[in-house]
Amino acid sequence: MRTAPPVPDETVRLPVEDLLALAGRVFLRLGLSPAHAEAMARTVVAGQRDACPSHGVYRILSCAHTLGCARVDPRAEPVLAATSGAVVRVDARYGFSPLAFERGLPALVASTREHGVGALVLQHCFHFSALWPEVEAITAQGLAALALTSSHAWVAPAGGHAPVFGTNPIAFGWPRPGPHPFVFDFATSAIARGDLELHRRHGTPLPPGCGVDSDGQPSTDPLAVAQGAMLAFGGHKGSALSAMVELMAGALIGDWISLESRAFDAGAGAIPCHGELVLAFDPARLSGGDATAQQQRAEQLFQAITRQGARLPSQRRFEARARSLAQGVSVPRALYEEILALAD
Amino acid sequence: MRTAPPVPDETVRLPVEDLLALAGRVFLRLGLSPAHAEAMARTVVAGQRDACPSHGVYRILSCAHTLGCARVDPRAEPVLAATSGAVVRVDARYGFSPLAFERGLPALVASTREHGVGALVLQHCFHFSALWPEVEAITAQGLAALALTSSHAWVAPAGGHAPVFGTNPIAFGWPRPGPHPFVFDFATSAIARGDLELHRRHGTPLPPGCGVDSDGQPSTDPLAVAQGAMLAFGGHKGSALSAMVELMAGALIGDWISLESRAFDAGAGAIPCHGELVLAFDPARLSGGDATAQQQRAEQLFQAITRQGARLPSQRRFEARARSLAQGVSVPRALYEEILALAD
Repeated sequence: MRTAPPVPDETVRLPVEDLLALAGRVFLRLGLSPAHAEAMARTVVAGQRDACPSHGVYRILSCAHTLGCARVDPRAEPVLAATSGAVVRVDARYGFSPLAFERGLPALVASTREHGVGALVLQHCFHFSALWPEVEAITAQGLAALALTSSHAWVAPAGGHAPVFGTNPIAFGWPRPGPHPFVFDFATSAIARGDLELHRRHGTPLPPGCGVDSDGQPSTDPLAVAQGAMLAFGGHKGSALSAMVELMAGALIGDWISLESRAFDAGAGAIPCHGELVLAFDPARLSGGDATAQQQRAEQLFQAITRQGARLPSQRRFEARARSLAQGVSVPRALYEEILALAD
Repeated sequence: MRTAPPVPDETVRLPVEDLLALAGRVFLRLGLSPAHAEAMARTVVAGQRDACPSHGVYRILSCAHTLGCARVDPRAEPVLAATSGAVVRVDARYGFSPLAFERGLPALVASTREHGVGALVLQHCFHFSALWPEVEAITAQGLAALALTSSHAWVAPAGGHAPVFGTNPIAFGWPRPGPHPFVFDFATSAIARGDLELHRRHGTPLPPGCGVDSDGQPSTDPLAVAQGAMLAFGGHKGSALSAMVELMAGALIGDWISLESRAFDAGAGAIPCHGELVLAFDPARLSGGDATAQQQRAEQLFQAITRQGARLPSQRRFEARARSLAQGVSVPRALYEEILALAD
């Protein structure tokens, strides 16, 4: 393994392939099947490469913790059902989600091209990854995508004080000419769960509006909010979207809502186990006409955003990706050594 | 026409059927075909009945204005194309949207039952209605629904100062046992355009965070914001959702984005002309199993929200509906008289 000398802020830089190989080796060591180990390595390295540390290689440690305490099957072979209408269904059988997504993707793409719209239902998976890698895998096929997943019940509904919703991310992607699609991926909670944990660990106050204590009073104390409830972004609108995610990625697809997922966890603090819904759309089929004119219309929108100095979502992430590919992926030294220790 | 005596706050109460008859008569008088007049009357009376005045019978006046200044065709017969895959397409041919939706609904329901997921594309329509009447028409069939539409470019992207997005509403519905579905319908702008207009008319300041002046500085002056730009709700997340609406209900379906719709209007202040995308989902098909267990899961979610004293979206609207059905629909007397004058 080639490692560049540590930079002053105590990080290590590794070529993507080396970090992939290391992560894969650790996952095998942790008992994952080769197919799971590869899919998981791709997922956590993509997060690290794009400077999303909360979805990066530190998740290897969460997976190790989850394997020690939860009913996850590290070798579960996902079962792809025969496509029914426009619906592709993969039962992850209580394995990690990335392999289940990879197994369903070709059928989703085929179904979407055939019907104009396609739905991929993932069931019974331990889910820790960002949604943008999935959305980008779909835009790479020239399709638009919308992905929704629940998590653990940590977020109170607008006007309430008790946790009901997960952090319930929504991700969307639109294929563009050139290297990068239009992509966003955000939690419907006012703050990501990982960021709340960081504030708790560092003893720093939360920004206002992120949560309430167990009496339902607004609080910036991360411990009080962890014992009370987080809040949705954007008031009643964000709260409504979070409810939609529960319904679409839970009740609609016959999988758990975040209340059930949290109950299943029973305080273990493992990676949440639940379902996911991914919708895909074929612009060539939905436009009913000239796909080039339509592509230009989207580019006109993006130009109207960027020429006034506003950024497109994911722009920072794509910049980080370019840096990582050119200079190697940056990993904090302490974390790198923890991961190395797991590889032995 | 039976009218109850005016209540002290100068409103008139009319039975729903009488208001429907009056609205239908006015629309005929304004030159709409009988089919359009009936669909439009149902739409504006539903808004008034549910105490949504901005989508109520005052819209009769906006329609009258639009007929006087825009290239709307009041008698356009919508053209329903043969369903292609899961996609139902209706060309409204520059007529008002409610009839186009009604013409597409049966095919959308059939397509969704057949494929699990269905998409209804409405193109080239003058669109002023709330999205919840459409979403409720779909939940009444036991399906879930997600509806998106753009408007006129009034809203700046996060980090910007120039209008790009419309107020771009998102509506979602989930079928429930009992009289009312779970429904939300909100603008992705921080304030509705109609509310901005009300503040401008009354000279009252906007709540903070709703807009910027033409120099991009935050402003609560409704006139300065109307000349500058409105903002999305929820910061960069709401802005990202608004971009998604432009892409899904514009570029994806081969219709205008809000910049084009505003340019077409050319300052006339008519009802916006653009497209709409309505997605529908069949829980029986997507669950892959026991639809009753799935329904119960959704009800468990709603109970977890309401038993802590939080409200479900649309609850106030359903209460207003019950009052209107029992006691008649309330219309401000001055507005009622303006409408009556149009009927003669």
